[in-house]
Amino acid sequence: MTEENVVYVGNKPPMSYVLAVTTQFNNGANEVVLKARGKAISRAVDVAEIVRNRFIPEALVDAITTGTEELPRKEGGTTNTSTIEIVLKK
Amino acid sequence: MTEENVVYVGNKPPMSYVLAVTTQFNNGANEVVLKARGKAISRAVDVAEIVRNRFIPEALVDAITTGTEELPRKEGGTTNTSTIEIVLKK
Repeated sequence: MTEENVVYVGNKPPMSYVLAVTTQFNNGANEVVLKARGKAISRAVDVAEIVRNRFIPEALVDAITTGTEELPRKEGGTTNTSTIEIVLKK
Repeated sequence: MTEENVVYVGNKPPMSYVLAVTTQFNNGANEVVLKARGKAISRAVDVAEIVRNRFIPEALVDAITTGTEELPRKEGGTTNTSTIEIVLKK
């Protein structure tokens, strides 16, 4: 799996990430990994569900893992942010 | 597993759900299921991470499943909302 199979989900509308994932599958990828942090985690789940239900019915969620990242704060120190990785396979 | 082992994550501060989960484990539960919908999904992941990293180090994420629910809209019709279930075990 190359880095091109990773889609980072941020603050854009879900459909732009859905398009990115769908394009990768249609270009021959067997696996696409969605990665998100913090509030974007909900959007990553939306993207996975929309891809499966509407665009790539043969795709399935192969694995979901969560984690915690320490990010620097602008006031100094660090803050903990949750992360998610959703592996979609077809 | 009884219904008491389910914690529904909504819009309260994450710590109130962390307390609910921690209390259930400390009362003898071997498994607690976090459930959330829509934007609360990110918070459910936060709760799972905080429980594991700070309160119940022996807890692990046993399974994460996502889904889609059709909810009625006030304007009529339905809207799709993503759901998550996080199973914590110790």
